Parts: sequence; structure tokens; C-alpha cells
Amino acid sequence: MTAAGREPMPADATVGSIGERALLRRLRARIPAADGVLLGIGDDAAVLATGAATLMTTDALVEGVHFRREWSSARRVGRKALSVNLSDVGAMAGRARFATVSLCLPAALPVSWIDALYDGLLERAAETGTALVGGNVSGIDGPLVIDVALLGESSRPLRRAGARPGDAIVVTGRLGLAEAGLALLAAGWRLGDDDGVGGYEPAADDVAALRACLRAQLDPAPPLAFAAALATAPGIHAGMDLSDGLSGDLAALCGESGVSALVRSSRLPLGPALERQGGGDPLLHALHGGEDYELLLAVDPAHVGGLEELARVHGVGVVAVGALAEGPPSVWLDAAEGRVPLPPHAHQHFAPPEGER
Amino acid sequence: MTAAGREPMPADATVGSIGERALLRRLRARIPAADGVLLGIGDDAAVLATGAATLMTTDALVEGVHFRREWSSARRVGRKALSVNLSDVGAMAGRARFATVSLCLPAALPVSWIDALYDGLLERAAETGTALVGGNVSGIDGPLVIDVALLGESSRPLRRAGARPGDAIVVTGRLGLAEAGLALLAAGWRLGDDDGVGGYEPAADDVAALRACLRAQLDPAPPLAFAAALATAPGIHAGMDLSDGLSGDLAALCGESGVSALVRSSRLPLGPALERQGGGDPLLHALHGGEDYELLLAVDPAHVGGLEELARVHGVGVVAVGALAEGPPSVWLDAAEGRVPLPPHAHQHFAPPEGER
Repeated sequence: MTAAGREPMPADATVGSIGERALLRRLRARIPAADGVLLGIGDDAAVLATGAATLMTTDALVEGVHFRREWSSARRVGRKALSVNLSDVGAMAGRARFATVSLCLPAALPVSWIDALYDGLLERAAETGTALVGGNVSGIDGPLVIDVALLGESSRPLRRAGARPGDAIVVTGRLGLAEAGLALLAAGWRLGDDDGVGGYEPAADDVAALRACLRAQLDPAPPLAFAAALATAPGIHAGMDLSDGLSGDLAALCGESGVSALVRSSRLPLGPALERQGGGDPLLHALHGGEDYELLLAVDPAHVGGLEELARVHGVGVVAVGALAEGPPSVWLDAAEGRVPLPPHAHQHFAPPEGER
Repeated sequence: MTAAGREPMPADATVGSIGERALLRRLRARIPAADGVLLGIGDDAAVLATGAATLMTTDALVEGVHFRREWSSARRVGRKALSVNLSDVGAMAGRARFATVSLCLPAALPVSWIDALYDGLLERAAETGTALVGGNVSGIDGPLVIDVALLGESSRPLRRAGARPGDAIVVTGRLGLAEAGLALLAAGWRLGDDDGVGGYEPAADDVAALRACLRAQLDPAPPLAFAAALATAPGIHAGMDLSDGLSGDLAALCGESGVSALVRSSRLPLGPALERQGGGDPLLHALHGGEDYELLLAVDPAHVGGLEELARVHGVGVVAVGALAEGPPSVWLDAAEGRVPLPPHAHQHFAPPEGER
């Protein structure tokens, strides 16, 4: 896939040296035809076969904010740029269909970097049945921006509103790995495109744990098939993806649904203990770490067993980490030392000083 | 409209001082309900009522590339960010329906600037029946980026392919005004939000011409209702919007349709003569100037009269500026000195040195 349809080009070509039109031709030549794309890249707009209801979302990765070129390969940046949007459509119990990619590119950027970015975008699109149907490239005198808009469909979109007192709070996967991965990257650990762990010499029994955290940060894998299956699963009252940390996202769900939440810290599916490698505290990461791209669900307790069965079919771990109760909207943590408020400490872009949030 | 639903805030508040959540609340509170929006801002994705075929496009405005804060008010940047996308949907003979707005914001940006940006976005959305259904805000250590993704619908999308030898080349409006406006801004002319022309003392007979060029650059007005009506107009074989200059866009249409084009320079609807004010050469601007956001159409000659009538109904000027002929794809100019090739000289982002295009 990676070499198909490309014009020959010097290895040191940059975005500035080849210009916008040549770059657009290069990208356009790589996009495969796909079901439902009545008219793809190359016109003023794409024409897409849609159903009666269409999901739409957008999310951007900004260099220096969401990724660093020295920490992540272009291919993984491309994969993540699509994955963070796929997670949003999945969280609506949806299936992704069509995406546009808008790039802001500094002139000195090597074309080979864009090629590898598209390797990742196209690979992730193929894995998830998503068609790339258009886009835009623009110059920028500053950091790289990769902005994706994604359309999807769901027979029964899953909202943040609708959770009820008594519902179980269910999460998928393990929490806090992406935040641990970020700490590990800052500490000097690296993950190769071949999943090799580098930066230091890992102990044999560390490698899998380090890899899991680094991959969660650099190349998140939301449980998309399971998420789409939630549209027909009984007893799921509300849901969203975990992108801003459990404390912040649960507060959002409680706010939309008008309920309070009690999380049992002993039930949290923590990431591996990697403090000595610079990975930070697994409990704090699970409570507040961003970018997990797992699911947060409010589930009728009578249907938690059925949901666990559905998750097993999809190879996804689910665990009930607490319960919802009558409002006012608030989040509480039930830990060894008793019940304490759990204020949102999630990552905010351009976060203000403490106390002003 | 401008003050509705906003939290009180100090006049010197910045994006960094209030944080992402407060900003999102502020923006969300301003979005009106709209037809077809089954679920709007505030969940992981919007849910939209769509027909069988949906148009999708995306286009970004990048500070320093597409606008300067010292040349344009935030309100006009907001209007233009939507208009450049509206133009793409119009050029497919479409009607805009739903938009998402993805913002990359430096922390020092005043919140009042974002408020005014949204004044413009919401105003333009209301003018065109477009619903803002979601978005994203992110930090950036660099220039502002406003990225819009737009969905629309058309009963018969108008493509770039399909133009035939013998077709008349028809354009709307006057060409080159936006490029003249850019030159005027560089020369120190300014346009207030009240449409007042400033920077120097204009002569009484200059004011309307200066205003037209500055407004074309800062606040383009694509002929959207006329464009949507093209879906049911007979004899329109192909079309696109004029965003990269007539020479470049006509080359694109010829390439997609496999035809050649001959433009008669005497027929070009030129902008006003403002060389002495720093506005540059109207003919060069009409041939090569970008960002006109007018329409370029390939029309069966027997239907040009009917198209002129339709344009009159919509208050739009149209003129046949040349004709298409058998390929190979190429663009020619028929001027006083004879027939000469008209190579594309359109603005390219991160443009390479001459001769390498």
C-alpha cells in the first residue's frame, strides 16, 4: 500500500519545495475507492451515500500539544488522528463511514513525513472501514495541525444524557495507560514503529507493560466494534468516551444526566506499576489521566452480565467501577479512607492556574 | 444575538485565563437549535437528519496565511471561515446544512476575540441556513487556526468533470476583486466592521470601489442561492468555485473534463481600476487572483440565455468569457496580441520557486 501511485520525488523533498498542487496530487492518488463514496477527492466537495441520521464529529492533533515529532512516528500520528475521532463516533454506538483530513503544514516539513502520516491514516481507515473522502492542505508558519472530521451512523445513538440513579458505572479496558505513556515518553522511553521499546534497556519483565503504556499514548485502540454493537444492546442508558480522564468525563456524564456518581477505587482497572521507570502513579492516572479512548457507560444493573458477555465476544474487558445515585451532579470516590469528592483534574488545553477552573 | 447566554467575564480574559471548559460552555450556549439537528453540541458527536446523498467539504483559515488580525476583524474572519466552505458546497449545486468548527487557539488570545469570531460564524450561519452542530477547541503554540467541516445536500451535484467541447465558459460576479483587496490591505487600506474605508483619505469616487475590493477579500459573498438553483437548471455540464484564480481553476476543470479552454480577455468582468491606490492590475487579478469565491461553469451555448435569466432573478451577474474545445487539457487566452497559453499562476500555499511548479 505505501508506495502505490506516488510520483517519484527526491528523498529530501519538502512541502515547500514541491508545492501545494503536487502534494495534493500525491495524496489524492493514494486514496482507494470505497463503498458509499458517490464522488470522492478532487471536486469541491465529496458526495456521500448517507442514511436518515448521520453522526458528525471533529478533532484535531496539534504538534507540541498532542504530539511531538521526536516522540512519535508520522505513521502513528496519522493513526491517532483518525482514532481520536473514531472514538467519538464509537461512543455514540456508531460505526465510522467517511472522513475528511485538513492539514496545516510548515513549508520545511519533509514530504516523506506526510507520506508516512498518510500510511497511518490509510491503514487505520482500512482497519475500520472508513473512507477518506476529501481534505485540504494549507501552509502554516508554526506547528503542524492534523484536523479530521468524521461521519458515522448508528441505529440508536448513545447519548451522555439518560443515565439513571442505580445504574452501574462500567468502563472498558484499563485506565490511565495513555497518561503513563506520556510520562514514560517524557522520561525518555520510546516506542518504535515495530513496537520495539527503546530509550533505555528495559528489564525483560517490563517490556510488555512499557509497550502497553507507550502504545496507549501513541496509537490508541478504542473498542470500536464493541462500541458499535452497543446500539442494539439492552440496558445501556448513557455513554461517552474517556478522553479527558475518568474524573472529568464522569462529571460531564453526571451533568448531562442529572445524577451523582460513586466510584469504588478498589474496582478501578489500573495500568501496570511503572513508577520506577518514570511512569507515575497508576491510581492517579486511572482517575485523572486523559486520552484513554475507552468507554464510560451507565448500565442497568440487570444488564451488566449481558454486557460482559458481549464484551467477551469482542475481546474487550469491561468492569463495573461504581454506581450512580440521585443528583445533584457530583462525583465521589469510595477509597480506604472513606468517601471523598473526586473533582475533575483532567487535562485541559490552555489550562488556567489551579483554583481558576 | 451577540450577548445571549454568555457568562460574565472580565474584559481582559484570555483563552488561557478561562480554560477550555469555560470556553466550550461559552460557545455552546450561543448555538441556536436548528432543523435537522437531532442532537447538537455537547455529546461525542452530533446526530443529523440527512438525505440519501450528503455533500462534505472542509477548509481552514490559518492566521498569517489566510488572514491577519491587524487586517481583519474577528467577526469577518468568522464569516469568511464559513463562506469559503459554503462556496464549495454551492459549487456542487448544493445547499449547506451542518457545520463543525475546530479551533486551534493560542493561550494569550482574548476571549473577546473568540466571541467576535462566533458573532461572525453565527451571523453567516443564520444568513445561509447552516446549523453549527459541533466542534473542538485545542491549544496551539503558534498561529490561530479556524477549520470548518461542512455538510450539504444537492438533488444533482455539479461536478468538475462533464464539460464538453463547445460549451460556453461562464463566470459569476467580477473577477480579481479579492486579490485587489489583498493588495490594498498590504498598501495600508482598511475596512471597518461598519464598512467604513480607512487607512488613508479616499477620494469620494473611490470609496465604493475600495470597499468592494476590501470586502471581497475580507468577507466574500459567494452566489449561494443561485448556485443551489443550478441543480435544476438545464444545460450546466460542469462547475466549480473560483478559489485559486481563473487560470488555475479553469486548468483544473479542463483536466477533469478532458477539454481545452479559450478565454477572451475582452470579455472578462474586471474589478475597478485602483492601481494608484495600490490595488494592482485588474486584468492580472482577474486571470490569476485567488479567493474570488465566484462560480466557473461550463454551459451548453443553447442554455446561456436561460442561465442569464436565472442569474437575474438571484441578483447575480453572469458573463460568458470564452468557450471550451477538444482537448488536450490546456487554457488559452485570446487577447489583442493574439492567442497565448495561459499557465496557472494561482496562489499556492507553501509555493515553490518559479519554474518548479
